[in-house]
Amino acid sequence: MPPRSPLAPAEFPQMPVISGVRLGATSAGIKYKDRTDLLLVELDPGTTVAGVLTRSLTASAPVDWCRIALPRGRARAIIVNSGNANAFTGQAGEATVDRTVRRAAELFECLPEEVFVSSTGVIGEPIDPGIIPAALDRLKGATRPDAWAEAAAAIMTTDTFPKGVTRTAQIGEATVRVNGIVKGSGMIAPDMATMLGYIFTDAAIPANVLQTLLTSATDRTFNCITVDSDTSTSDTVLLCATGQATHRTVSASTDPHLQDFRRALDEVCLELAHQVVRDGEGATKFVSIRVDGAASDLAARRIGLAIANSPLVKTAIAGEDANWGRIVMAVGKSGEKADRDRLSISIGGVQVAKDGKVVEGYDEEPVARHMKGSEIDFAVDVGVGRGSAQIWTCDLTHGYIDINGSYRS
Amino acid sequence: MPPRSPLAPAEFPQMPVISGVRLGATSAGIKYKDRTDLLLVELDPGTTVAGVLTRSLTASAPVDWCRIALPRGRARAIIVNSGNANAFTGQAGEATVDRTVRRAAELFECLPEEVFVSSTGVIGEPIDPGIIPAALDRLKGATRPDAWAEAAAAIMTTDTFPKGVTRTAQIGEATVRVNGIVKGSGMIAPDMATMLGYIFTDAAIPANVLQTLLTSATDRTFNCITVDSDTSTSDTVLLCATGQATHRTVSASTDPHLQDFRRALDEVCLELAHQVVRDGEGATKFVSIRVDGAASDLAARRIGLAIANSPLVKTAIAGEDANWGRIVMAVGKSGEKADRDRLSISIGGVQVAKDGKVVEGYDEEPVARHMKGSEIDFAVDVGVGRGSAQIWTCDLTHGYIDINGSYRS
Repeated sequence: MPPRSPLAPAEFPQMPVISGVRLGATSAGIKYKDRTDLLLVELDPGTTVAGVLTRSLTASAPVDWCRIALPRGRARAIIVNSGNANAFTGQAGEATVDRTVRRAAELFECLPEEVFVSSTGVIGEPIDPGIIPAALDRLKGATRPDAWAEAAAAIMTTDTFPKGVTRTAQIGEATVRVNGIVKGSGMIAPDMATMLGYIFTDAAIPANVLQTLLTSATDRTFNCITVDSDTSTSDTVLLCATGQATHRTVSASTDPHLQDFRRALDEVCLELAHQVVRDGEGATKFVSIRVDGAASDLAARRIGLAIANSPLVKTAIAGEDANWGRIVMAVGKSGEKADRDRLSISIGGVQVAKDGKVVEGYDEEPVARHMKGSEIDFAVDVGVGRGSAQIWTCDLTHGYIDINGSYRS
Repeated sequence: MPPRSPLAPAEFPQMPVISGVRLGATSAGIKYKDRTDLLLVELDPGTTVAGVLTRSLTASAPVDWCRIALPRGRARAIIVNSGNANAFTGQAGEATVDRTVRRAAELFECLPEEVFVSSTGVIGEPIDPGIIPAALDRLKGATRPDAWAEAAAAIMTTDTFPKGVTRTAQIGEATVRVNGIVKGSGMIAPDMATMLGYIFTDAAIPANVLQTLLTSATDRTFNCITVDSDTSTSDTVLLCATGQATHRTVSASTDPHLQDFRRALDEVCLELAHQVVRDGEGATKFVSIRVDGAASDLAARRIGLAIANSPLVKTAIAGEDANWGRIVMAVGKSGEKADRDRLSISIGGVQVAKDGKVVEGYDEEPVARHMKGSEIDFAVDVGVGRGSAQIWTCDLTHGYIDINGSYRS
């Protein structure tokens, strides 16, 4: 077990009960010994669901299933295993998913399409199709409304700490809760970050509205982080609303009464995304990259990702080197419009380059001090328009090589 | 000085004289102490030239100059310095180039547009504009026709060995020579690889024909290698033909009498490209990736590059782990069409996955042995069409982090 990331928050938050949500975790023995590797989330009847799935063209069998089940918009159970991604496992993989959702549908007296599954871990090794259904039988009577920390721990793979966030929001006169858990520390890149994320609320929100809210939140959070530019076959974020809070009816994502809920959901997604970056494999620095002056917001995002994914930028950060020349290089390779002779770059709030060249005599001392810290801020203005974006990443260190050079052994 | 790459060839080749080409190297004191950092290549009147330049949108001042000079198609001198890229240096950078080409034009009694310049090294630091012109005055009388090894050494930055290749070709009854030197070991990615490459022949070929031949060769060689996905601001490959060999006139790239010359040029470019990969920063494995069954050759190339640039694939190779699941992941993230359920993967000639799943009972022993070697072969068939590509890369190791975490210090 690698040591806890130096960028981890001090502790797992106190997560409140969400009416209609019960969680349970167990050791099913899928791959790891002596640790939990299976999560069951039971959801009361009436729960609506929305989801965002990997755009990988070699998606896993569980992702294929979620894509089929999501349009129905109802969820009664979520089953997540760690240790094996059930990806690139052909018909055996589909059979495992099929047996799992059928068994859960029997246990919870619902349709198979109300059961969602995720798997994370090694690609290409079949899972014994009987293991998960058997574990479900044991878990069914053992779920609790307060088992958030256990749930977050059960879905970890190379994560060094469990990740959770909670917020409250007002919908009209009522206070609702939003709890989220997430896993992910490698193979993190937009569309989607390699992540499994599960967010729950007691608000009563129709599935189509939930979907709009989740897609919007994801675009500015989970899809703006990157660890190593790789994209998982298994990325899944689900948002479930049990509807057990009593509040005025909302039927459109633009309803002004949803404004505070959107704020809370965005905050949960952003904080979860940041925790994923803070657990980036081998990470020692949390890096924020602000891009302004691009031709469009999308162009700004691509430039930000080109910087964030550049191995040369990431190793310079690891080496605490304010090597802004590599930022220039990354802007240049992004393929997006930039005016070299109007480009400016700030590091830790100090402008080091302006109008396409170094700022003569800039004060190097605060910049060097900033680079030695664990929170690094870059701001780049590419001088062609009004598009902007904010991207988060981490540095590339020996730790990343250690973890990924021996993942299967 | 880092130790010579374990993948380096045994020695620098014996490179023959090419009539009309003279080379000289000196220590101009641009950045490095006690090593040569400036190359001058003198070319006899009548030499034609073609070039391929970085597509970076933050290209260096020397690249901007080459883009202006190339359409004229004539070359009398090439001046290359290492230690400083003269990139992102604003008007000071342009002034340095201007003074350099004007001084060379005086020395060689030619137009400034017949003088080509390249710079490689740190980005963002101005070069003293007088240093290179002063060194040219010293070099002018000191060039030799046989100084290929010194020339290859003078243009090195983090390279651990000088790189050169020579071939001969028949044009009609005549034998012509093709010599190439190259530098590059980091910031290597297609469009272009970060490289400076200079190829010389005594053949008599018009500039427009040279350009067609060089572009074609580059597409299948320099643009099919990658070390770390980063793209330089300074990439330049020039091909010069002195025209001093006596052979039948050729006036079109499709002339059948150029067939053997094309073969020789392609071989020089391919071998130079391979040497760059073999000197990839921290590389311990030379990796060949063959992609078949793609929707088009371009799609195959993108899939191959997605595999070659994946940090997870590259660290698995460094760890000698036949982790083909990560190859599946990389195919999925490429964005190109692939049929997950027809995908097959071979490692070292052994098929490990077929029809979207592991080959049950494949012989792991030869695969494990192959991964322990220094020459790694992957073959992937994505099962949708007839497009194919061949890509070369290296592994991602602690050495890369060491080199790039402290480049400027």
